[in-house]
Amino acid sequence: MVKKYLNKISLTDALKKLKDRFKDFRTESEKIKTVDAEGRVTVNAVMAKRSAPDFYAAAMDGIAVEAQKTAGASERAPIQLEIGSEAQAVDTGDPIPEQFNAVIKIEEVNQTDENHYTIEKAVPPWNHIRSIGESTVKGNLLVTASHKLSDYDLAALLEAGVTEIEVYQKPLITIIPTGDELVNASENPKIGELVEFNSQMVKAALKKWGAEIRVTEIIADQKELIEKAVVESVKASDMVIVLSGSSAGRGDYTIDILKKQGKILFHGVNIMPGKPLIAAEVKGIPVFGLPGYPLSAWLDNHLFIRELVYLMQAESAPNFKQIEAEVKRKVSSEIGLEEFLRVNLINQAENKFTAVPLKRGSSAMESILKADGIMRISENKEGLHPGDRAPVILLKEKNRIKNDLLLIGSHDLSLDLIRNEIRKRNYNFDLKLQTVGSMAGLTALRRGESHLAGAHLLDPENGEYNVSYLRKFFKGQKLLVVNLVYREQGLYLKKGNPKNIANIDDLTQNNINYINRQRGAGTRVLFDFLLSQNEIETNQISGYEKEEYTHIAAAAAVGRGSADAALGIRAAAEVMDVDFLPLAEEKYDLIIKAENIDDPRINKLIKLISENKIKSKIENLGGYNCQETGNIKKLQL
Amino acid sequence: MVKKYLNKISLTDALKKLKDRFKDFRTESEKIKTVDAEGRVTVNAVMAKRSAPDFYAAAMDGIAVEAQKTAGASERAPIQLEIGSEAQAVDTGDPIPEQFNAVIKIEEVNQTDENHYTIEKAVPPWNHIRSIGESTVKGNLLVTASHKLSDYDLAALLEAGVTEIEVYQKPLITIIPTGDELVNASENPKIGELVEFNSQMVKAALKKWGAEIRVTEIIADQKELIEKAVVESVKASDMVIVLSGSSAGRGDYTIDILKKQGKILFHGVNIMPGKPLIAAEVKGIPVFGLPGYPLSAWLDNHLFIRELVYLMQAESAPNFKQIEAEVKRKVSSEIGLEEFLRVNLINQAENKFTAVPLKRGSSAMESILKADGIMRISENKEGLHPGDRAPVILLKEKNRIKNDLLLIGSHDLSLDLIRNEIRKRNYNFDLKLQTVGSMAGLTALRRGESHLAGAHLLDPENGEYNVSYLRKFFKGQKLLVVNLVYREQGLYLKKGNPKNIANIDDLTQNNINYINRQRGAGTRVLFDFLLSQNEIETNQISGYEKEEYTHIAAAAAVGRGSADAALGIRAAAEVMDVDFLPLAEEKYDLIIKAENIDDPRINKLIKLISENKIKSKIENLGGYNCQETGNIKKLQL
Repeated sequence: MVKKYLNKISLTDALKKLKDRFKDFRTESEKIKTVDAEGRVTVNAVMAKRSAPDFYAAAMDGIAVEAQKTAGASERAPIQLEIGSEAQAVDTGDPIPEQFNAVIKIEEVNQTDENHYTIEKAVPPWNHIRSIGESTVKGNLLVTASHKLSDYDLAALLEAGVTEIEVYQKPLITIIPTGDELVNASENPKIGELVEFNSQMVKAALKKWGAEIRVTEIIADQKELIEKAVVESVKASDMVIVLSGSSAGRGDYTIDILKKQGKILFHGVNIMPGKPLIAAEVKGIPVFGLPGYPLSAWLDNHLFIRELVYLMQAESAPNFKQIEAEVKRKVSSEIGLEEFLRVNLINQAENKFTAVPLKRGSSAMESILKADGIMRISENKEGLHPGDRAPVILLKEKNRIKNDLLLIGSHDLSLDLIRNEIRKRNYNFDLKLQTVGSMAGLTALRRGESHLAGAHLLDPENGEYNVSYLRKFFKGQKLLVVNLVYREQGLYLKKGNPKNIANIDDLTQNNINYINRQRGAGTRVLFDFLLSQNEIETNQISGYEKEEYTHIAAAAAVGRGSADAALGIRAAAEVMDVDFLPLAEEKYDLIIKAENIDDPRINKLIKLISENKIKSKIENLGGYNCQETGNIKKLQL
Repeated sequence: MVKKYLNKISLTDALKKLKDRFKDFRTESEKIKTVDAEGRVTVNAVMAKRSAPDFYAAAMDGIAVEAQKTAGASERAPIQLEIGSEAQAVDTGDPIPEQFNAVIKIEEVNQTDENHYTIEKAVPPWNHIRSIGESTVKGNLLVTASHKLSDYDLAALLEAGVTEIEVYQKPLITIIPTGDELVNASENPKIGELVEFNSQMVKAALKKWGAEIRVTEIIADQKELIEKAVVESVKASDMVIVLSGSSAGRGDYTIDILKKQGKILFHGVNIMPGKPLIAAEVKGIPVFGLPGYPLSAWLDNHLFIRELVYLMQAESAPNFKQIEAEVKRKVSSEIGLEEFLRVNLINQAENKFTAVPLKRGSSAMESILKADGIMRISENKEGLHPGDRAPVILLKEKNRIKNDLLLIGSHDLSLDLIRNEIRKRNYNFDLKLQTVGSMAGLTALRRGESHLAGAHLLDPENGEYNVSYLRKFFKGQKLLVVNLVYREQGLYLKKGNPKNIANIDDLTQNNINYINRQRGAGTRVLFDFLLSQNEIETNQISGYEKEEYTHIAAAAAVGRGSADAALGIRAAAEVMDVDFLPLAEEKYDLIIKAENIDDPRINKLIKLISENKIKSKIENLGGYNCQETGNIKKLQL
């Protein structure tokens, strides 16, 4: 991807430039009903239009009197008051007639005849009377200008007679998606087409921040069409966002158009992802060019556009929820670029979190779907070393992350099922999965990056699963090995097996394209074992070097015809509707450090997978055997 | 207010009872468009319907080839490929034709004639090709059940072909306001009427938490009418909330109705405010009776109903943003009741806050309007002592509170003007005001509860303002005294002066009712000084013991006719449209500890009030003289 950046600047400088330029930029004001004003921001100070309560009211059931007339009353010298002129019955909340200034409790009053009360106690002025303006006083300042209205602000305004209020309009933002290869997300893309979803992602966030959004139709990659859309949108909006397609070479029109129509504030920021951002001013309003890769667009939207959306409503964007977390592995990062790395977090101790990086790459949504937060590696760092700490922007509530379990290891479909069951039952934790292969899972567990590892590693020497590997990884430690499943491994073949593959030997044929799993994956270990059993060299397998990371991805590749065969579990074959040629049954275990044996979440998890109902759900996925599921073996290594 | 509580329980127990009873209660599900699903919660796990990208695509501009055919190519032994059958030009993003499995960069290709390319380098399979499913793979779990959808979730769903999604419906909640004395907030209440605003306050919060709200008309205090409304609402809602009027004796119908129609879970919780809450189950749905005092209703809504609204959407309510803060004074609290006290917060040091309590009372909105947070004093504490710490639920962003200035002291209208100006100019701090009188302001400053005090305390001995008091309060310390204004003090009189009050002596007449200011208020000190100058005893003044807390409130009392005279500043007379009889000019100063002289906020504030523009705005309020406004005097006491 070749891009020319006018002037790449740091995040801090870019943000400052943007905010300085638009610091006084506000949407127009509008008058709306107070009852609809929650979350909106006032243009002016608002004063109470009336006092509340607006009358003196009885605070007790009793009689209203003139306090002066009760002076000297006692048991021995009771005072008689004429009903009507000198006293009047009132209930709590009733207004006090103008001539009276005190209330005597009903318990302290005797009615001597039809026209008279007798009292035996004097009362001071204002006895048992609620003040005018006890809650609010006419003329008092209720809320200042530039104040975001809360639920209780509305109450105070309504109480004080303010039924309409002037607020800043919601910013109207026009989003212009561009790209020849894009089709609407509601359509089925043909080969070579991609669905356009960035506009909806950006829109959803902008709406949450208080804006109103118009998304234009997708504009083809023609300069004059994009220019026309920009010019028209600028006229009718408070902000315009041009979304590039995700292919290279695009977005160049945008910079030319914005240069011609307005002034570029910056083009390119020293961040990753999100580098190719364009910020400009056209006819006084901010116009952005967002990169096409979804994670880049997402990050730029949250780092830059969000600030302006709040500013336009006379607010400051709330600070990101951010914590510090430690890494337990080396994390590389390019110097000169602030990197935003998706991570899982695990809670090590009170307010002490470890961050475990997910896959990089700004085109894959999966990493953010699985992430708990986004770790910031500052531009003057070449990366992080084990033990280093870095800030992490949270994508979830800290208190939920604290409760979660993190499993790092091999991929198995039953884990998705279990995870979903946990959510459905509203357990107070989530089971998060990082699928990196069995070996990487054991490494992560050893480093303290996870609560559980998932592994199915065959020892070719003795045909046993996992134990010999654990012995190497966890020498001297105590572990729990909990069986998750036994599962069939076999070859995914295109529906109908057009190339007549009948056994592993057939993979060496010239016209057969294989797709392998990544290094350290148990399935790859198994494949290597099967090859050596059959005395096949890896260079006899065309495609041995092409790697996929999950069973599903491998089966999908076969289903799509881009490979003829791949090794994997039966359940994925059923999901992807490909043929399956069974070759082996293998054991998939969960590995847990013995010190966590009393963790209530671990216990809940083991209890869950031990349920017959869950076991039969897993077996229904196909190719699973749950006879030992939930069985615990303690190992002293 | 006489109330019978069935069984008063603690907050924790009440919440547990409520959540246990409704833990499996969910709204119905509905299918909506994915593009509209931000913030909604999934009913089921959602799998990718297609892979994305769904085709192998060129990652570079170049030619697509079969990798095997490039084997052995070198500068000395270039290989020729026939265009069409053996190679095909592709641009970045283009799909790779099925027969090819690698891309060679255009820079590494020579076109030798119309029908042939020549290459000088071999490439491995999958060279410069983007994988199928690089972002998402058909069949993969995208989101689990009970998952709240974020902006990037929508993107991932749309990319994977999921254009519709099953989510929990927004809970439909019916609010039934009841009370004879209530009228709609859009109307002008007559004497004895109160506007109904609790329904709008509760509605605004419920909407923010994801619910849809129907508010019925106001139901009169008749059992059969309220019962009818409850029964009908229960049929058509996921939750019903009955709002009591704020007068005593009400709400008793609600408990009887709910007892008859369903089952009471609890009636009365050991919290303050918010004690008289009723929680019940009627025909399987939760029904609440909320107390009429707005702060009670607000707190119960946030502590209890909020939890259920989230639960019904298969979510947990996010934790309150809570910090710990220290108190610097004694704070009383009833043992056996968890108290929720509105407080201002000031930042003492990094993450160290001091809490300064505002007025109590659950009927006055003002305390929450001014508050930064709500301090929780646990039910087993009799109160707090100076130095004690207690949790505070934040009502504002912690980072904003950190920046704010807190002024505690006497009330002056120019402060509202200045505060508003600060907000309008988008300074990064707010000037918060607690109006408690001059003396209390000095006490607060001495304790370290405020950044500034506001005082106008006359020394009757020498006619000087503030200095002799400061000498008493701040012995040995260095202070800055910044003049805010000189202002006229005088008597508020009913429009047209019907009782012909011409001087302070006239206040002793029999038919004259005075309203005083609270103890410690500078205006009261001045009144006492004027009385003694005129040799009048306080017991000659009818109403001397009736206290108001602000100039505006005092003027309002006179305007409304509940008093004939009160002492105060001219500006409030103008606001409240009463007559004003000038008696004195007094000096109002801001007091700041000298150590804060370099605080940039203090400097900004002093600079602001020194602007001629601001001075003339203040003088336009009436009765102000700004000749010395902004002048700084340093005092070593």
